[in-house]
Amino acid sequence: MVLFPKFELLDAFGPLEAFAHAPALFKIVLIAEGPGPVASAQGPKVLPDCELNDCPHLDVILVPGGPGVRSQVQNPVLLNWLAARAARAELVTSVCTGSALLARAGILDGRRATSNKMGFEWVMRQGPAVHWLRAARWVDDGSVVTSSGVSAGIDMALYVIGRLGGAEERDKIARIMEYEWRGDSRYDPFAKRPVARSGRGKW
Amino acid sequence: MVLFPKFELLDAFGPLEAFAHAPALFKIVLIAEGPGPVASAQGPKVLPDCELNDCPHLDVILVPGGPGVRSQVQNPVLLNWLAARAARAELVTSVCTGSALLARAGILDGRRATSNKMGFEWVMRQGPAVHWLRAARWVDDGSVVTSSGVSAGIDMALYVIGRLGGAEERDKIARIMEYEWRGDSRYDPFAKRPVARSGRGKW
Repeated sequence: MVLFPKFELLDAFGPLEAFAHAPALFKIVLIAEGPGPVASAQGPKVLPDCELNDCPHLDVILVPGGPGVRSQVQNPVLLNWLAARAARAELVTSVCTGSALLARAGILDGRRATSNKMGFEWVMRQGPAVHWLRAARWVDDGSVVTSSGVSAGIDMALYVIGRLGGAEERDKIARIMEYEWRGDSRYDPFAKRPVARSGRGKW
Repeated sequence: MVLFPKFELLDAFGPLEAFAHAPALFKIVLIAEGPGPVASAQGPKVLPDCELNDCPHLDVILVPGGPGVRSQVQNPVLLNWLAARAARAELVTSVCTGSALLARAGILDGRRATSNKMGFEWVMRQGPAVHWLRAARWVDDGSVVTSSGVSAGIDMALYVIGRLGGAEERDKIARIMEYEWRGDSRYDPFAKRPVARSGRGKW
Protein backbone atom coordinates (compact mmCIF):
# COMPACT_ATOMS: atom_id res chain seq x y z
CA MET A 1 0.00 0.00 0.00
CA VAL A 2 1.45 3.30 -1.13
CA LEU A 3 0.72 6.27 1.14
CA PHE A 4 1.12 9.98 0.32
CA PRO A 5 -0.07 13.15 2.05
CA LYS A 6 -3.88 13.55 1.87
CA PHE A 7 -4.58 10.00 0.75
CA GLU A 8 -8.24 9.04 1.17
CA LEU A 9 -8.60 7.12 4.44
CA LEU A 10 -11.13 4.49 3.32
CA ASP A 11 -9.45 4.01 -0.09
CA ALA A 12 -6.49 2.63 1.84
CA PHE A 13 -7.99 0.91 4.86
CA GLY A 14 -11.09 -0.64 3.33
CA PRO A 15 -9.00 -2.89 1.05
CA LEU A 16 -6.33 -3.42 3.75
CA GLU A 17 -9.02 -4.66 6.16
CA ALA A 18 -9.99 -7.29 3.58
CA PHE A 19 -6.43 -8.27 2.63
CA ALA A 20 -5.37 -8.54 6.28
CA HIS A 21 -7.99 -11.22 6.83
CA ALA A 22 -6.14 -13.39 4.28
CA PRO A 23 -2.69 -13.66 5.93
CA ALA A 24 -1.87 -16.77 3.89
CA LEU A 25 -2.15 -14.62 0.75
CA PHE A 26 -0.87 -11.22 1.85
CA LYS A 27 1.81 -9.70 4.04
CA ILE A 28 0.93 -6.01 4.23
CA VAL A 29 3.59 -3.31 3.87
CA LEU A 30 2.82 0.42 4.08
CA ILE A 31 5.15 2.50 1.93
CA ALA A 32 5.74 6.26 1.83
CA GLU A 33 8.20 8.50 0.03
CA GLY A 34 9.98 9.52 3.22
CA PRO A 35 10.11 8.52 6.88
CA GLY A 36 7.62 9.63 9.52
CA PRO A 37 3.82 9.65 9.70
CA VAL A 38 1.65 10.37 6.66
CA ALA A 39 -1.52 12.39 7.23
CA SER A 40 -4.64 11.22 5.41
CA ALA A 41 -7.08 13.72 3.89
CA GLN A 42 -9.43 12.91 6.78
CA GLY A 43 -6.83 13.68 9.45
CA PRO A 44 -5.57 10.40 10.92
CA LYS A 45 -1.79 10.03 10.63
CA VAL A 46 -0.34 6.63 9.77
CA LEU A 47 3.20 5.31 10.20
CA PRO A 48 4.68 3.69 7.07
CA ASP A 49 6.70 0.47 7.35
CA CYS A 50 9.29 1.53 4.79
CA GLU A 51 10.27 4.17 2.26
CA LEU A 52 9.99 3.95 -1.52
CA ASN A 53 13.72 3.32 -1.83
CA ASP A 54 14.08 0.63 0.82
CA CYS A 55 10.89 -1.41 0.55
CA PRO A 56 11.04 -5.13 -0.27
CA HIS A 57 9.90 -6.74 -3.53
CA LEU A 58 6.15 -6.22 -4.00
CA ASP A 59 3.89 -8.85 -5.54
CA VAL A 60 0.78 -6.70 -5.31
CA ILE A 61 0.79 -2.89 -5.33
CA LEU A 62 -2.22 -0.94 -4.06
CA VAL A 63 -2.54 2.80 -4.76
CA PRO A 64 -5.29 4.78 -3.03
CA GLY A 65 -6.82 8.01 -4.27
CA GLY A 66 -7.79 11.16 -2.44
CA PRO A 67 -7.18 14.91 -2.68
CA GLY A 68 -3.41 14.34 -2.45
CA VAL A 69 -3.42 12.75 -5.91
CA ARG A 70 -3.68 16.25 -7.42
CA SER A 71 -0.10 17.01 -6.38
CA GLN A 72 1.28 13.46 -6.67
CA VAL A 73 0.53 13.38 -10.42
CA GLN A 74 3.33 15.99 -10.61
CA ASN A 75 5.74 13.94 -8.45
CA PRO A 76 8.34 12.20 -10.67
CA VAL A 77 9.84 10.34 -7.69
CA LEU A 78 6.57 8.51 -7.00
CA LEU A 79 5.64 8.08 -10.69
CA ASN A 80 9.04 6.62 -11.63
CA TRP A 81 8.93 4.31 -8.62
CA LEU A 82 5.43 3.12 -9.59
CA ALA A 83 6.49 2.44 -13.18
CA ALA A 84 9.58 0.49 -12.08
CA ARG A 85 7.82 -1.53 -9.39
CA ALA A 86 4.73 -2.22 -11.50
CA ALA A 87 6.95 -3.81 -14.17
CA ARG A 88 8.09 -6.39 -11.61
CA ALA A 89 4.81 -6.89 -9.73
CA GLU A 90 2.26 -9.64 -10.29
CA LEU A 91 -0.64 -7.25 -9.83
CA VAL A 92 -1.13 -3.48 -9.60
CA THR A 93 -4.36 -2.19 -8.10
CA SER A 94 -5.88 1.21 -7.39
CA VAL A 95 -8.87 2.74 -5.65
CA CYS A 96 -10.65 5.92 -6.71
CA THR A 97 -8.34 8.55 -8.25
CA GLY A 98 -5.36 6.31 -7.53
CA SER A 99 -5.84 5.26 -11.16
CA ALA A 100 -4.74 8.78 -12.19
CA LEU A 101 -1.34 8.00 -10.66
CA LEU A 102 -1.14 4.69 -12.52
CA ALA A 103 -2.11 6.53 -15.72
CA ARG A 104 0.54 9.22 -15.26
CA ALA A 105 3.13 6.52 -14.58
CA GLY A 106 2.25 5.00 -17.98
CA ILE A 107 1.01 1.76 -16.40
CA LEU A 108 -2.47 1.98 -17.94
CA ASP A 109 -1.62 2.88 -21.54
CA GLY A 110 -3.68 0.71 -23.91
CA ARG A 111 -5.48 -0.88 -20.98
CA ARG A 112 -9.03 -0.74 -19.63
CA ALA A 113 -9.45 1.07 -16.31
CA THR A 114 -11.93 2.97 -14.13
CA SER A 115 -11.89 5.59 -11.40
CA ASN A 116 -14.23 7.44 -9.08
CA LYS A 117 -17.17 9.18 -10.68
CA MET A 118 -16.91 12.70 -9.27
CA GLY A 119 -13.43 13.21 -10.64
CA PHE A 120 -13.79 11.09 -13.76
CA GLU A 121 -13.18 13.79 -16.36
CA TRP A 122 -10.03 14.97 -14.59
CA VAL A 123 -8.74 11.41 -14.23
CA MET A 124 -9.38 10.70 -17.92
CA ARG A 125 -7.19 13.66 -18.85
CA GLN A 126 -4.29 12.07 -16.91
CA GLY A 127 -4.30 9.12 -19.32
CA PRO A 128 -5.38 9.89 -22.90
CA ALA A 129 -4.17 6.46 -24.08
CA VAL A 130 -6.25 4.58 -21.48
CA HIS A 131 -9.61 2.93 -22.29
CA TRP A 132 -11.58 4.48 -19.44
CA LEU A 133 -14.78 2.69 -18.42
CA ARG A 134 -17.20 4.87 -16.47
CA ALA A 135 -19.82 2.28 -15.48
CA ALA A 136 -17.73 -0.21 -13.51
CA ARG A 137 -17.27 -0.98 -9.84
CA TRP A 138 -13.87 -2.36 -10.76
CA VAL A 139 -12.05 -3.33 -13.98
CA ASP A 140 -9.80 -6.40 -14.26
CA ASP A 141 -7.28 -5.96 -17.06
CA GLY A 142 -5.00 -8.83 -16.16
CA SER A 143 -2.02 -7.47 -14.28
CA VAL A 144 -3.88 -4.25 -13.42
CA VAL A 145 -7.16 -4.01 -11.48
CA THR A 146 -8.56 -0.50 -10.94
CA SER A 147 -11.64 0.35 -8.93
CA SER A 148 -14.20 3.10 -8.68
CA GLY A 149 -14.61 5.52 -5.75
CA VAL A 150 -13.77 4.93 -2.08
CA SER A 151 -16.08 2.06 -1.01
CA ALA A 152 -15.56 0.35 -4.37
CA GLY A 153 -12.05 -0.44 -3.16
CA ILE A 154 -13.55 -2.98 -0.74
CA ASP A 155 -15.37 -4.69 -3.61
CA MET A 156 -12.18 -4.72 -5.66
CA ALA A 157 -10.13 -6.12 -2.78
CA LEU A 158 -12.61 -8.94 -2.23
CA TYR A 159 -12.57 -9.63 -5.97
CA VAL A 160 -8.75 -9.83 -5.90
CA ILE A 161 -8.87 -12.18 -2.91
CA GLY A 162 -11.25 -14.38 -4.89
CA ARG A 163 -8.99 -14.27 -7.94
CA LEU A 164 -5.85 -15.15 -5.99
CA GLY A 165 -7.28 -17.31 -3.21
CA GLY A 166 -10.63 -18.62 -4.39
CA ALA A 167 -14.30 -17.84 -3.87
CA GLU A 168 -14.53 -19.61 -0.52
CA GLU A 169 -11.80 -17.46 1.04
CA ARG A 170 -13.36 -14.32 -0.47
CA ASP A 171 -16.85 -15.11 0.85
CA LYS A 172 -15.52 -16.00 4.30
CA ILE A 173 -13.77 -12.64 4.58
CA ALA A 174 -16.82 -10.74 3.30
CA ARG A 175 -18.85 -12.45 6.04
CA ILE A 176 -16.27 -11.60 8.73
CA MET A 177 -16.46 -7.99 7.54
CA GLU A 178 -20.28 -8.20 7.39
CA TYR A 179 -19.94 -6.74 3.90
CA GLU A 180 -22.39 -7.53 1.12
CA TRP A 181 -20.00 -8.17 -1.73
CA ARG A 182 -21.45 -7.93 -5.22
CA GLY A 183 -19.91 -10.20 -7.83
CA ASP A 184 -20.89 -8.06 -10.81
CA SER A 185 -18.10 -5.58 -11.56
CA ARG A 186 -20.40 -3.69 -13.94
CA TYR A 187 -23.00 -3.00 -11.26
CA ASP A 188 -22.28 0.69 -10.65
CA PRO A 189 -25.22 2.80 -9.51
CA PHE A 190 -22.97 5.85 -9.13
CA ALA A 191 -22.07 5.99 -12.83
CA LYS A 192 -25.61 7.11 -13.65
CA ARG A 193 -25.63 10.14 -11.38
CA PRO A 194 -24.49 13.61 -12.38
CA VAL A 195 -20.74 14.04 -12.24
CA ALA A 196 -18.70 17.18 -11.74
CA ARG A 197 -17.60 18.61 -15.08
CA SER A 198 -14.64 20.65 -13.90
CA GLY A 199 -11.31 19.52 -12.53
CA ARG A 200 -11.52 21.96 -9.66
CA GLY A 201 -13.30 19.65 -7.22
CA LYS A 202 -11.47 18.16 -4.25
CA TRP A 203 -11.20 14.83 -6.08
CA MET B 1 -12.56 8.00 18.25
CA VAL B 2 -11.02 5.83 20.94
CA LEU B 3 -8.07 3.70 19.84
CA PHE B 4 -6.52 0.74 21.67
CA PRO B 5 -4.02 -1.95 20.61
CA LYS B 6 -5.51 -4.36 18.03
CA PHE B 7 -8.53 -2.22 17.21
CA GLU B 8 -10.24 -3.30 13.98
CA LEU B 9 -9.01 -1.06 11.16
CA LEU B 10 -12.27 -0.63 9.26
CA ASP B 11 -14.36 -0.29 12.45
CA ALA B 12 -12.46 2.93 13.06
CA PHE B 13 -11.77 4.35 9.62
CA GLY B 14 -15.02 3.47 7.85
CA PRO B 15 -17.03 5.77 10.16
CA LEU B 16 -14.23 8.37 10.30
CA GLU B 17 -14.22 8.59 6.50
CA ALA B 18 -17.93 9.44 6.63
CA PHE B 19 -17.70 11.86 9.57
CA ALA B 20 -14.72 13.66 8.04
CA HIS B 21 -16.82 14.55 5.00
CA ALA B 22 -19.10 16.55 7.33
CA PRO B 23 -16.63 19.08 8.79
CA ALA B 24 -19.46 21.42 9.77
CA LEU B 25 -20.73 18.69 12.10
CA PHE B 26 -17.57 16.97 13.32
CA LYS B 27 -14.05 17.80 14.37
CA ILE B 28 -12.28 14.47 14.65
CA VAL B 29 -10.01 13.65 17.59
CA LEU B 30 -8.16 10.32 17.93
CA ILE B 31 -7.68 9.31 21.54
CA ALA B 32 -5.50 6.61 23.11
CA GLU B 33 -4.62 5.65 26.66
CA GLY B 34 -0.99 6.71 26.29
CA PRO B 35 1.23 8.59 23.85
CA GLY B 36 2.74 7.08 20.70
CA PRO B 37 1.32 5.09 17.81
CA VAL B 38 -1.42 2.50 18.27
CA ALA B 39 -1.22 -0.67 16.15
CA SER B 40 -4.46 -1.91 14.64
CA ALA B 41 -5.23 -5.64 14.48
CA GLN B 42 -4.52 -5.46 10.74
CA GLY B 43 -1.08 -3.92 11.24
CA PRO B 44 -1.22 -0.20 10.34
CA LYS B 45 -0.09 2.03 13.21
CA VAL B 46 -1.94 5.28 13.85
CA LEU B 47 -0.88 8.35 15.82
CA PRO B 48 -3.45 9.55 18.39
CA ASP B 49 -4.15 13.28 18.79
CA CYS B 50 -4.40 13.11 22.59
CA GLU B 51 -4.44 10.82 25.59
CA LEU B 52 -7.46 9.79 27.65
CA ASN B 53 -6.49 12.21 30.41
CA ASP B 54 -5.84 15.28 28.29
CA CYS B 55 -8.44 15.12 25.54
CA PRO B 56 -10.98 17.91 25.09
CA HIS B 57 -14.71 17.67 25.82
CA LEU B 58 -16.32 15.12 23.49
CA ASP B 59 -19.80 15.57 22.04
CA VAL B 60 -19.76 12.25 20.20
CA ILE B 61 -17.71 9.21 21.28
CA LEU B 62 -16.97 6.41 18.83
CA VAL B 63 -15.62 3.07 20.08
CA PRO B 64 -14.40 0.49 17.54
CA GLY B 65 -14.21 -3.24 18.08
CA GLY B 66 -11.58 -5.78 17.13
CA PRO B 67 -9.49 -8.49 18.77
CA GLY B 68 -8.08 -5.94 21.26
CA VAL B 69 -11.49 -5.65 22.92
CA ARG B 70 -10.83 -8.98 24.64
CA SER B 71 -8.18 -7.39 26.85
CA GLN B 72 -9.73 -3.92 27.07
CA VAL B 73 -12.85 -5.30 28.80
CA GLN B 74 -10.43 -5.92 31.70
CA ASN B 75 -8.96 -2.40 31.58
CA PRO B 76 -10.46 -0.24 34.38
CA VAL B 77 -8.65 2.89 33.12
CA LEU B 78 -10.46 2.78 29.80
CA LEU B 79 -13.80 1.59 31.23
CA ASN B 80 -13.88 4.31 33.91
CA TRP B 81 -12.95 6.93 31.32
CA LEU B 82 -15.74 5.73 29.02
CA ALA B 83 -18.31 5.84 31.82
CA ALA B 84 -17.28 9.36 32.87
CA ARG B 85 -17.09 10.77 29.35
CA ALA B 86 -20.29 9.07 28.18
CA ALA B 87 -22.19 10.77 31.00
CA ARG B 88 -21.24 14.17 29.56
CA ALA B 89 -21.46 13.33 25.82
CA GLU B 90 -24.40 13.98 23.54
CA LEU B 91 -23.96 10.66 21.78
CA VAL B 92 -21.97 7.46 22.35
CA THR B 93 -21.49 5.12 19.39
CA SER B 94 -19.78 1.80 18.79
CA VAL B 95 -18.91 -0.54 15.95
CA CYS B 96 -18.71 -4.32 16.17
CA THR B 97 -17.49 -5.60 19.55
CA GLY B 98 -16.95 -2.02 20.70
CA SER B 99 -20.38 -2.47 22.28
CA ALA B 100 -18.78 -4.96 24.71
CA LEU B 101 -16.68 -2.08 26.05
CA LEU B 102 -19.75 0.13 26.41
CA ALA B 103 -21.51 -2.76 28.17
CA ARG B 104 -18.65 -3.35 30.60
CA ALA B 105 -18.53 0.38 31.34
CA GLY B 106 -22.22 0.18 32.36
CA ILE B 107 -23.30 2.53 29.57
CA LEU B 108 -25.75 0.05 28.00
CA ASP B 109 -27.59 -1.22 31.09
CA GLY B 110 -31.33 -1.25 30.42
CA ARG B 111 -30.76 -0.14 26.85
CA ARG B 112 -31.14 -1.77 23.43
CA ALA B 113 -27.90 -2.51 21.59
CA THR B 114 -26.30 -4.73 18.97
CA SER B 115 -22.86 -6.03 18.04
CA ASN B 116 -21.11 -8.11 15.40
CA LYS B 117 -22.57 -11.52 14.70
CA MET B 118 -19.53 -13.78 15.01
CA GLY B 119 -18.84 -12.71 18.57
CA PHE B 120 -22.43 -12.07 19.62
CA GLU B 121 -22.65 -14.64 22.44
CA TRP B 122 -19.42 -13.40 24.02
CA VAL B 123 -20.53 -9.78 23.74
CA MET B 124 -23.90 -10.58 25.34
CA ARG B 125 -22.09 -12.03 28.35
CA GLN B 126 -20.33 -8.68 28.85
CA GLY B 127 -23.69 -6.99 29.50
CA PRO B 128 -26.35 -9.20 31.12
CA ALA B 129 -28.56 -6.14 31.77
CA VAL B 130 -28.52 -5.05 28.11
CA HIS B 131 -31.38 -5.75 25.67
CA TRP B 132 -29.25 -7.25 22.90
CA LEU B 133 -30.77 -7.25 19.41
CA ARG B 134 -29.15 -9.71 17.03
CA ALA B 135 -30.90 -8.77 13.76
CA ALA B 136 -29.93 -5.13 13.42
CA ARG B 137 -27.44 -3.25 11.26
CA TRP B 138 -27.47 -0.59 13.97
CA VAL B 139 -29.61 0.26 17.02
CA ASP B 140 -30.54 3.82 17.97
CA ASP B 141 -31.33 4.04 21.69
CA GLY B 142 -31.27 7.81 22.00
CA SER B 143 -27.93 8.84 23.43
CA VAL B 144 -26.34 5.53 22.44
CA VAL B 145 -26.12 4.12 18.90
CA THR B 146 -24.43 0.73 18.52
CA SER B 147 -23.74 -1.05 15.25
CA SER B 148 -23.13 -4.53 13.98
CA GLY B 149 -19.85 -5.84 12.57
CA VAL B 150 -17.11 -3.91 10.74
CA SER B 151 -18.81 -2.57 7.58
CA ALA B 152 -21.99 -1.85 9.54
CA GLY B 153 -20.08 1.00 11.18
CA ILE B 154 -20.27 2.88 7.88
CA ASP B 155 -24.05 2.47 7.81
CA MET B 156 -24.28 3.62 11.42
CA ALA B 157 -22.05 6.65 10.77
CA LEU B 158 -24.19 7.72 7.81
CA TYR B 159 -27.30 7.24 9.95
CA VAL B 160 -25.77 9.46 12.67
CA ILE B 161 -24.86 12.11 10.08
CA GLY B 162 -28.49 12.04 8.92
CA ARG B 163 -29.77 12.32 12.49
CA LEU B 164 -27.50 15.24 13.36
CA GLY B 165 -27.20 16.96 10.00
CA GLY B 166 -30.15 15.89 7.89
CA ALA B 167 -30.85 13.44 5.08
CA GLU B 168 -29.44 15.67 2.35
CA GLU B 169 -26.01 15.85 4.01
CA ARG B 170 -26.07 12.09 4.65
CA ASP B 171 -26.96 11.23 1.06
CA LYS B 172 -24.35 13.62 -0.33
CA ILE B 173 -21.62 11.96 1.72
CA ALA B 174 -22.78 8.45 0.80
CA ARG B 175 -22.53 9.51 -2.87
CA ILE B 176 -19.02 10.95 -2.37
CA MET B 177 -18.05 7.63 -0.78
CA GLU B 178 -19.85 5.72 -3.57
CA TYR B 179 -21.49 3.76 -0.77
CA GLU B 180 -24.98 2.31 -1.09
CA TRP B 181 -26.44 3.28 2.27
CA ARG B 182 -29.47 1.35 3.40
CA GLY B 183 -31.97 3.24 5.50
CA ASP B 184 -33.43 0.19 7.23
CA SER B 185 -31.51 -0.51 10.43
CA ARG B 186 -33.21 -3.90 10.71
CA TYR B 187 -31.92 -5.11 7.35
CA ASP B 188 -29.21 -7.48 8.55
CA PRO B 189 -28.44 -10.40 6.25
CA PHE B 190 -25.60 -11.53 8.53
CA ALA B 191 -27.88 -12.21 11.51
CA LYS B 192 -29.34 -15.22 9.70
CA ARG B 193 -26.06 -16.99 9.10
CA PRO B 194 -24.43 -19.42 11.49
CA VAL B 195 -22.56 -17.71 14.30
CA ALA B 196 -19.71 -18.98 16.43
CA ARG B 197 -21.05 -20.47 19.64
CA SER B 198 -17.93 -20.20 21.74
CA GLY B 199 -16.12 -17.16 23.03
CA ARG B 200 -12.81 -18.46 21.75
CA GLY B 201 -12.99 -16.80 18.32
CA LYS B 202 -10.81 -13.85 17.45
CA TRP B 203 -13.77 -11.49 17.91
